[in-house]
Amino acid sequence: MTPAARAEAAYDRIRSAGRPEIWIHLRPRDEVLAEAAGIDPALPLAGLVVAVKDNIDVAGLPTTAGAPSYAYRPAADAPAVARLRAAGAVVLGKTNLDQFATGLVGTRSPYGAVRNAWDTTRISGGSSSGSAVAVALGIADLALGTDTAGSGRVPAALNGIVGVKPTKGLVPVTGVVPACYTLDCVTVFARDLRLARTAAEIVEGPDPADPLSRTGTQLPPPPARPRIAVPAPEHLDGMADGWREAFDATVARLAATGADIVETDVTPLLRAAELLYGGAFVAERYAAVGGHVDEHRDLIGTDLDATVASIVLAGREKTAADWAADTARLAALGAAGRAALDGCAALLTPTTTWHPTLEQVAAEPVAANARMGRFTNFANLLDYASLAVPAGCVDGLPFGVMLTGPAFSDRALAALAERLAAPQLDLFVAGAHLTGQPLNVQLVQAGGALAGPARTATGYRLYALPTDPPKPGLVRVADGGTGQGPGGGIEGEIWRLPAAGFGAFVAAVPAPMAIGTVELSDGRRVSGFLVEPYAVRGAPDITRFGGWRAYTGSA
Amino acid sequence: MTPAARAEAAYDRIRSAGRPEIWIHLRPRDEVLAEAAGIDPALPLAGLVVAVKDNIDVAGLPTTAGAPSYAYRPAADAPAVARLRAAGAVVLGKTNLDQFATGLVGTRSPYGAVRNAWDTTRISGGSSSGSAVAVALGIADLALGTDTAGSGRVPAALNGIVGVKPTKGLVPVTGVVPACYTLDCVTVFARDLRLARTAAEIVEGPDPADPLSRTGTQLPPPPARPRIAVPAPEHLDGMADGWREAFDATVARLAATGADIVETDVTPLLRAAELLYGGAFVAERYAAVGGHVDEHRDLIGTDLDATVASIVLAGREKTAADWAADTARLAALGAAGRAALDGCAALLTPTTTWHPTLEQVAAEPVAANARMGRFTNFANLLDYASLAVPAGCVDGLPFGVMLTGPAFSDRALAALAERLAAPQLDLFVAGAHLTGQPLNVQLVQAGGALAGPARTATGYRLYALPTDPPKPGLVRVADGGTGQGPGGGIEGEIWRLPAAGFGAFVAAVPAPMAIGTVELSDGRRVSGFLVEPYAVRGAPDITRFGGWRAYTGSA
Repeated sequence: MTPAARAEAAYDRIRSAGRPEIWIHLRPRDEVLAEAAGIDPALPLAGLVVAVKDNIDVAGLPTTAGAPSYAYRPAADAPAVARLRAAGAVVLGKTNLDQFATGLVGTRSPYGAVRNAWDTTRISGGSSSGSAVAVALGIADLALGTDTAGSGRVPAALNGIVGVKPTKGLVPVTGVVPACYTLDCVTVFARDLRLARTAAEIVEGPDPADPLSRTGTQLPPPPARPRIAVPAPEHLDGMADGWREAFDATVARLAATGADIVETDVTPLLRAAELLYGGAFVAERYAAVGGHVDEHRDLIGTDLDATVASIVLAGREKTAADWAADTARLAALGAAGRAALDGCAALLTPTTTWHPTLEQVAAEPVAANARMGRFTNFANLLDYASLAVPAGCVDGLPFGVMLTGPAFSDRALAALAERLAAPQLDLFVAGAHLTGQPLNVQLVQAGGALAGPARTATGYRLYALPTDPPKPGLVRVADGGTGQGPGGGIEGEIWRLPAAGFGAFVAAVPAPMAIGTVELSDGRRVSGFLVEPYAVRGAPDITRFGGWRAYTGSA
Repeated sequence: MTPAARAEAAYDRIRSAGRPEIWIHLRPRDEVLAEAAGIDPALPLAGLVVAVKDNIDVAGLPTTAGAPSYAYRPAADAPAVARLRAAGAVVLGKTNLDQFATGLVGTRSPYGAVRNAWDTTRISGGSSSGSAVAVALGIADLALGTDTAGSGRVPAALNGIVGVKPTKGLVPVTGVVPACYTLDCVTVFARDLRLARTAAEIVEGPDPADPLSRTGTQLPPPPARPRIAVPAPEHLDGMADGWREAFDATVARLAATGADIVETDVTPLLRAAELLYGGAFVAERYAAVGGHVDEHRDLIGTDLDATVASIVLAGREKTAADWAADTARLAALGAAGRAALDGCAALLTPTTTWHPTLEQVAAEPVAANARMGRFTNFANLLDYASLAVPAGCVDGLPFGVMLTGPAFSDRALAALAERLAAPQLDLFVAGAHLTGQPLNVQLVQAGGALAGPARTATGYRLYALPTDPPKPGLVRVADGGTGQGPGGGIEGEIWRLPAAGFGAFVAAVPAPMAIGTVELSDGRRVSGFLVEPYAVRGAPDITRFGGWRAYTGSA
């Protein structure tokens, strides 16, 4: 794909996605296409399209930080943006966020709540909400976010993509609206770990204008048999249904690659996490934007998000002596945390603890948010690098895990994540393996997770086979024009399995069933159940029901 | 000297020094002598006697931090104390300090102002006042201090000794009453650089109970031709009379060893220094001891020093948002400071800017103090190591300079200081070279400085020689019992000269004068003016006047 074609596809996808809330400022299509046409195809990111969180400066576009009243027009790109552009990437526009990057939900914005890429009734997560969803929906190849509490990781997890939170200071925060100035990081989202890391290394490097930017020697790669800490069971309480099991499966998967898993008391880290909003450090938010909120109290509830404003203004009430005391407390927790992780290459945790609906967050905006930062909030306070990666699905929604390690362990964490990122394969099922059907357990045992509902293209016929248990047979016919079910295809589900589990599952499929390629209604071609033609001779054609569930429900 | 003899000598010196204000708690002589008698003479510090600032725990002695109402009895030695003891050192007692280590003067203590070792009308400097004076007077071989603003360096400079302020975290602050918890360092005083460094390395090393304690790789030794930054001339304004010239002489001395001197705009460092008391960081003092001061407001002016109390209580007024803003400001100043010193092995500065009298400090307790931290206050805020070393005398009082470098440059700084520490030689003068006499200029031209008044032992006779200019001749006689001057000896002065200057001076001394060894009234033997016996034949014996000044004044 040429850069111009890639850019064009992005605008097509923006139109078809129907998610206007992703963008605060989208650049005009023609302008971007013209820019893309001029890209040197030899550049490392040539023609990749990038979405930029709207608290990061892009020259020529306003920076709002999610508050129209705060908007200013920067003269220059932030270094992270400039470096991506210099590597050949094309900026599409500026994305929605929890205002002033204060939130992990993605709903705290006068530009509208950002809906999850997989389920529009659920939150995107935040604060880098628009950036994460733009990548998850395939609109952008890469996106820039920021991360103070977990804003570059929580939305990665909730939208099934990779979020790189580099070591603090590796990417300059020049041209970034501060949330907590000493804690903020610029982050990278991508669907793929390697592209995320490539981009992260491109945006790294000190900047004279950022006194906190720094360089450092990356820690060596992890040994063949790394020790990996995981939280003790009690620290995994209270997560969403099925997430504990999904985490255990991820741990088992990592152990299977030769890692030594060490159950660890991570209480000091969780206590430190609580200090981010529970302590005096929230005063950094007041120092950053409190003056603006103070001067525009009349806009609270409209331009200024009421929850964000209350958090920012509460920062004013903390004393410097509170800060000093919390700093001492944090130092003690940090030392205890380091001791707990001593000898471990990284800490593996779920990225967040649950995935609320938009409605749940609206009902309890602070409490719902607070539950989400359990495993993320401590990283910047205690100077850890962190990497959020997808780890399958639970109930049809992405589940994500996080590897967290010392400052300058960025590359080591990526190497560990590669172990986790065992290739995942999608399988279309339409009969006895559907959720709730008798053979579904085989998919779960193979490490599979429901990725979501799907439907075949037209041109398939479904037969009820005389097997035990009863199964349907899916057959593609030359002329798909007749006999198709309602909605133009056969209803089924996509299950995502680790490659090894997929192989074992396929090897165990009995005749007359077979695994071949199924074309879906959206044009994708995935592996799926077919049947040998002999087996459908004389079997009833049930295509008119539109799917196995409708047929068995009618019986 | 055996450990017991060294301890006995220390108590003799304590008695003869007449400086009771040095001590808050002095251990009983017999107890210390018994402990010394049991020391393994093979230990590296075997029998060296140590004074410990009274904000550092010594098991069995109360820790007061300079406030009787604050006193507690620690169960254990602070690690720094325990490590010196394990190396064979013997603790004499706990020394006076500016209360809660808040001050650079040494006068802010209900236990009394500590008088300077060289001039009892002058301040000792602080806050490690008693520790520095105990070393300077030869009572203790080593002393522990602490340093937040400069408390381990300013009193070293004002008393003519070495003060090592290690990289923050190298020496644990376990068992130390915090001044500013995140900035405090334990420091070492000694008369000699090598002993100071030996002791500093003995007290280094992490402690699980101190979350801020850390290890790190020391930077490599400086190159043969190191670049050394010195402040631009305008940053040396407003110093005590003669200090600018003394500093220039030190710079010239360092340049003569092959160092490249680079005049540097150190404005960012001086601005950072101002933030220590001028910004929100003073809230750490409130966080540390504000509760105690708040609860004992009735003791302000008696038990609690009024100046210290007002500084501590002012810390309560700062907000966490102030702190956040000052942190951002400090980060920017830190980066600018690093840029200014880029490529330099260290920054060479005067240690402090003036040496006030006790009276001057009493008149303006805050303003007098504030002038003293210009070059010291930034080091801990910006994570520098620093080393204060003597650099001669001005007007008979010590002048000190400081080498300051990045964290973990401790050893590199010591190597640079060795270049400065050109051997200094003492010379007793009793005639035309005395201050105010016609040949005194020769000593100044040779790089000499007045180290103080002195008097010979008994047994010397003084003759008025017929030279031009008139000079006295000093002759030791077998029977010193007769004809001695008042006070038992001949009055004179000790001048301290760099070895090279001393050599040149001696080579130019005309007959009948000679340089030999003179025994002083305190038993010391130093180089000094003698005269060939032929020259005193027929010359008037003026021994009865007690000295050349009294004789010439009588003429």
